[in-house]
Amino acid sequence: MSQIPSYSEIIEAHEKIKNLVTKTPVFTSSTLNELFGVDLYFKCENFQKTGSFKFRGASNAVMNIRDEEAKNGVGTHSSGNHGAALALAAKNRGSDAYIVMPKNSCPVKMKAVEQYNAHITYCDPGLDSREETYRQIEQLTQAKFIHPSGNRQVICGQGTATKELIEEYPDLDAVIAPVGGGGLISGTSIAAKGINSDIRIYGAEPKMADDAYRSFKQGFLIPVDRPNTIADGLLTSLSPLTFKIINEYLDDILLAKEQTIIDAMRFIWERMKIVAEPSAAVSLAAIMDNRFVLKSKKVGIILSGGNVDLSNLPF
Amino acid sequence: MSQIPSYSEIIEAHEKIKNLVTKTPVFTSSTLNELFGVDLYFKCENFQKTGSFKFRGASNAVMNIRDEEAKNGVGTHSSGNHGAALALAAKNRGSDAYIVMPKNSCPVKMKAVEQYNAHITYCDPGLDSREETYRQIEQLTQAKFIHPSGNRQVICGQGTATKELIEEYPDLDAVIAPVGGGGLISGTSIAAKGINSDIRIYGAEPKMADDAYRSFKQGFLIPVDRPNTIADGLLTSLSPLTFKIINEYLDDILLAKEQTIIDAMRFIWERMKIVAEPSAAVSLAAIMDNRFVLKSKKVGIILSGGNVDLSNLPF
Repeated sequence: MSQIPSYSEIIEAHEKIKNLVTKTPVFTSSTLNELFGVDLYFKCENFQKTGSFKFRGASNAVMNIRDEEAKNGVGTHSSGNHGAALALAAKNRGSDAYIVMPKNSCPVKMKAVEQYNAHITYCDPGLDSREETYRQIEQLTQAKFIHPSGNRQVICGQGTATKELIEEYPDLDAVIAPVGGGGLISGTSIAAKGINSDIRIYGAEPKMADDAYRSFKQGFLIPVDRPNTIADGLLTSLSPLTFKIINEYLDDILLAKEQTIIDAMRFIWERMKIVAEPSAAVSLAAIMDNRFVLKSKKVGIILSGGNVDLSNLPF
Repeated sequence: MSQIPSYSEIIEAHEKIKNLVTKTPVFTSSTLNELFGVDLYFKCENFQKTGSFKFRGASNAVMNIRDEEAKNGVGTHSSGNHGAALALAAKNRGSDAYIVMPKNSCPVKMKAVEQYNAHITYCDPGLDSREETYRQIEQLTQAKFIHPSGNRQVICGQGTATKELIEEYPDLDAVIAPVGGGGLISGTSIAAKGINSDIRIYGAEPKMADDAYRSFKQGFLIPVDRPNTIADGLLTSLSPLTFKIINEYLDDILLAKEQTIIDAMRFIWERMKIVAEPSAAVSLAAIMDNRFVLKSKKVGIILSGGNVDLSNLPF
């Protein structure tokens, strides 16, 4: 298995993508700070191009492939944000993108992938069908596969959000980010520790999809088993590489209840007037459900994305 | 009737309130620009304290009353954003705020007024009941009445949003803002023309509450008659002062259909990932329903507020 990326690789990634990605703003809310007794700094990746941090990792991966590879295009299977991110990243490089999406993906996310002119193949739901369908596409096209979280360049790209955040707020005590496949929390950890080795790193995970929590506590990789959470970006399992990084760097993984995720999402919408998707609200929810862990600390939150189906809200 | 405020009064207002109000960011969206063929600059007053531009006007009005008056407090009748804005503005000055609210006001807006410790009196719906109830409170308290739009200091406070916008983007061709009681569009006009006499000024109004449009076209003040629009901040009539300012400064008032207001709101939420209330979406809707008026122009939009009941969305 490959080595853990170093902070210098995140610096390189940032150089490579900083003219492609949005330098997202950091929002604060005195109301939320008072309510929860924490000083929160939200890195607003919901304002990132394609509506999530995934565009950072996808851009870095696409910028790092060789010209010969780029000619065949890039591809992935994704039900969500990584697909749209890869589609735009490929378009920016003038490459084709081949995205395999489950038929039951959220229509808003399907539309997003379509709008960047990706070649979409719809498959049956389930990882087996996704992988099998993708293999067929790969054989036809020779496209370069870009894994949503287990790819080294993807991880380094995701870390650039935290690099920007801590460069703007150097005195944060801790950073927290949601854990799905682990690409975001891995990049977050490497960037944060690279800038300040004393900073504490927390993952946030839905109680109803707590595979990373259990893997972290038990010391071996436990795949996610029938996850059932509103946080649809956090349904996937860790990869061996992201599990290794999490083990190395995280102080803890905090769990959030489903109702708290919905409440947190509503707080963000109502009080901060910004649209965050459920997966992005999991970090705040985890703080709400574990009040004493970060009490009175200055905490950076990676608000991961804002792609949500407005016709199907939980409130 | 009092004279139209001058731009120098807006400069004074800005000096007085700039440490109290949020200097809100200006957002752009290349997706929306492409969709509508206009270069849009959204001044995000949904991020303003109390969730709307009303806090600027209320703050300026409260900062301009004499100490003897401030002892008795300030008051108004309001079903919405002006009440919350005045409550916080009074709290900031250490004054009491007396707010008369119709019983059927949106619960979210009631909660907002309560959270700033205002003295609330609930009345029956309808302007007669509001005014009669307020008269009783006024007799008891001698509180200073702050009209939501016809007050000179309120108008000058509202204009500070446009002052900030044009100072940041001096080359705008036009500015557009929604018209309810006319306080916002009045302040907007004076500020914009004060900085650049060539800039064009547009009001935006729901077709279903088009009293300002008809007043503007016919040259005399026509009160609103049974308005029936989702834009709940635009249900009130112009005051003599705001009608005079509108007549003097506006290039035109553009109307928006109800469905377009909902579509515009959805575009703002989905594409820009920010929460805007229906009244705030009326400007974009008016551009969408009058495509050729502002085609290819650089247009500032005052995105007036973000207070919306998430349990009761139109999509």
